[in-house]
Amino acid sequence: MIHFALRRAHNIHWQHLEVDRNAHASLKHQRPKVVWFTGLSGAGKSTIANLVEKKLHHLGRHTFLLDGDNLRHGLNRDLGFSDADRVENIRRAGEVARLMADAGLIVLCAFISPFRAERRMVRELMPAGDFLEVFVDVPLADAERRDPKGLYRKARAGEIPNFTGIGSPYERPENAEIRIETTAMLPEEAADLIVKAVLG
Amino acid sequence: MIHFALRRAHNIHWQHLEVDRNAHASLKHQRPKVVWFTGLSGAGKSTIANLVEKKLHHLGRHTFLLDGDNLRHGLNRDLGFSDADRVENIRRAGEVARLMADAGLIVLCAFISPFRAERRMVRELMPAGDFLEVFVDVPLADAERRDPKGLYRKARAGEIPNFTGIGSPYERPENAEIRIETTAMLPEEAADLIVKAVLG
Repeated sequence: MIHFALRRAHNIHWQHLEVDRNAHASLKHQRPKVVWFTGLSGAGKSTIANLVEKKLHHLGRHTFLLDGDNLRHGLNRDLGFSDADRVENIRRAGEVARLMADAGLIVLCAFISPFRAERRMVRELMPAGDFLEVFVDVPLADAERRDPKGLYRKARAGEIPNFTGIGSPYERPENAEIRIETTAMLPEEAADLIVKAVLG
Repeated sequence: MIHFALRRAHNIHWQHLEVDRNAHASLKHQRPKVVWFTGLSGAGKSTIANLVEKKLHHLGRHTFLLDGDNLRHGLNRDLGFSDADRVENIRRAGEVARLMADAGLIVLCAFISPFRAERRMVRELMPAGDFLEVFVDVPLADAERRDPKGLYRKARAGEIPNFTGIGSPYERPENAEIRIETTAMLPEEAADLIVKAVLG
């Protein structure tokens, strides 16, 4: 294994790209950002991220929405929900978000991403100031009552082990750039606030 | 494992995105494409792909270049060169290319991608007509003589097992949309030809 790792490190070059992040961004007249939505299942991350994307799109901004559920149907479909697989799920999402930012886009990412360490890992892929963490803060009881996908019910019945909030912890962000209290704000209002922060 | 797989399939929803590929593409006034460069190491894939990107960028097209070497420093840095890892390397590259096309971009991909099956897998991720395979066809002897990264020398010395063309086969494309004969054409000429095909 060590020999293998060495071989990789030695023999993979870095290919210089002439059209770089700055060139891509200036064609789009915008500054690339990664906006990372974290929170419990059912908090409303995807709903708010969709609204933010719609508003940015109407303003002529070049965006992309990376959604945790959708990524698990494609790029991450080989991953499950063990701790190691969750970390790999977020690592790949972060790497794709960085590539999208390299392409000059404003990238909205909606992932439960329950662990602080993995959110920090993603943050560190981006230049300071170009990563916005949005904590969609819903009380567990509320998320469970709404249960839009019926997952909390299954988790309580023991059908989904490691479900965040039930069998697996959610580590609340300590320094998110934006915190949305879903009990105090409608999705539309939250989206307006986030758009302002992205463009500000 | 089977239980696990079932659980995944049952409990992951598909999140509908309101700003879709068409919306992203129309903001950019272009049709998304994936242009896939395949060929031996040292064939000139990255060189030509870089030229194509520069030309498209100067024409105001929104592009991105996914390069095999660079991806192995980030998204695919957990992968080696076993057959399974090579397939996974290309699978992920294809999924990222599809996401980039969903974002409305013209995506240039430079990967040795020696196996027909994996190139077909990537092709099938895209709507017919939106995937262009570019075979950068260099005689092995030429690639080995140029050896820009010194890799053929190492492979001949037995230091790189499974090196494509030496310890591992390269399966020539049978139906590539474009074939570039590097012995008959300069990179600039090849790039012009490809740009015409992308925009045509």
